[in-house]
Amino acid sequence: MAAMTDYRLVRGAATRRRLMDAAAECLAELGWAGSTVAVVATRAGVSRGALQHHFPTREDLFTSAVEHVAERQSAALRGLAGAGAGAVVHGIVDLYTGPLFRASLHLWVAASTEPQLRPRVVELESRIGREAHRTAVELLGANESVPGVREVVQGLLDMARGLGLASLLTDDRERRERVVRRWVSIVEGVLGAGESSPSGV
Amino acid sequence: MAAMTDYRLVRGAATRRRLMDAAAECLAELGWAGSTVAVVATRAGVSRGALQHHFPTREDLFTSAVEHVAERQSAALRGLAGAGAGAVVHGIVDLYTGPLFRASLHLWVAASTEPQLRPRVVELESRIGREAHRTAVELLGANESVPGVREVVQGLLDMARGLGLASLLTDDRERRERVVRRWVSIVEGVLGAGESSPSGV
Repeated sequence: MAAMTDYRLVRGAATRRRLMDAAAECLAELGWAGSTVAVVATRAGVSRGALQHHFPTREDLFTSAVEHVAERQSAALRGLAGAGAGAVVHGIVDLYTGPLFRASLHLWVAASTEPQLRPRVVELESRIGREAHRTAVELLGANESVPGVREVVQGLLDMARGLGLASLLTDDRERRERVVRRWVSIVEGVLGAGESSPSGV
Repeated sequence: MAAMTDYRLVRGAATRRRLMDAAAECLAELGWAGSTVAVVATRAGVSRGALQHHFPTREDLFTSAVEHVAERQSAALRGLAGAGAGAVVHGIVDLYTGPLFRASLHLWVAASTEPQLRPRVVELESRIGREAHRTAVELLGANESVPGVREVVQGLLDMARGLGLASLLTDDRERRERVVRRWVSIVEGVLGAGESSPSGV
């Protein structure tokens, strides 16, 4: 019986993950209005009832999906530990120009006009934002006890979000590449690349 | 008869402006899904027929509205000519954290999943983006013939867009103020404030 329960748990977790992946994909491709619970169930190959067992409401499904993808991408970003500032900034910008950002953006904008979504998305985005900031500080070896360093890293993340927005409708890669290259050199100069260590938090 | 025609033209232009203002307000407050033609007509106190005389389609109405507000704000920004880099960067950031940006963002995100809206918004946003860039270069007295200067200004505008996004759901003013102050000093250093002149384009 224990083995049976384990198997069910494993299968349950796999179904849950498949649903969250499908939900994030739908959100990125179809936007909030087009991302119904039915569309996600079909895409994941899961019955509507099974979906509702895992995620009782539409808000549960999509906020969990964005959080799930954010965790995966944050882990991938932490894999850049020890890489130079150039690789790190490019990694951060990639994160904000990829499908996760697109999914988050749809959820974020929907939350600004949907009261039942808003408090959950505010809480979620603040958590994702804090985590992104912490990861960026670690990876850049930025010493936040130095006045102004915190704001340099925050501005960099804001810029990455702006670059993500600029890539929503058009392929903005070439321009973005030039902007990022220029700003990497500025950030290296400002953070005093020579003085900071990759584990200098 | 000539006077009569003039009066009609003036009244027509005033109605058109009132409709565009109402459309931009609706978009910022209610998002794309909630911004129907009927809602805008009611808010502007204009009949549905009169609205459709000025703007035959929903796409016409909302792209014209965003363009109209963008032109007004761009003119306000140009009023900062001669102010220091600090005032200029704050002015740019205010532009991207105000109601125009909110309206644009809703239109932008809707365009990413609505094929009939997409080409018009792509064209519009590219035009607004170019104009914002040109104005920023002029106001900052940035010399774009110096390698890298163009990318500094572009990155600054991307950062402003990212800050706008961060202020969509929560009042982010205090954090934003600190980030902007820090980046103003960085940009002043990078652009070599002493060397450039306010008319140095």
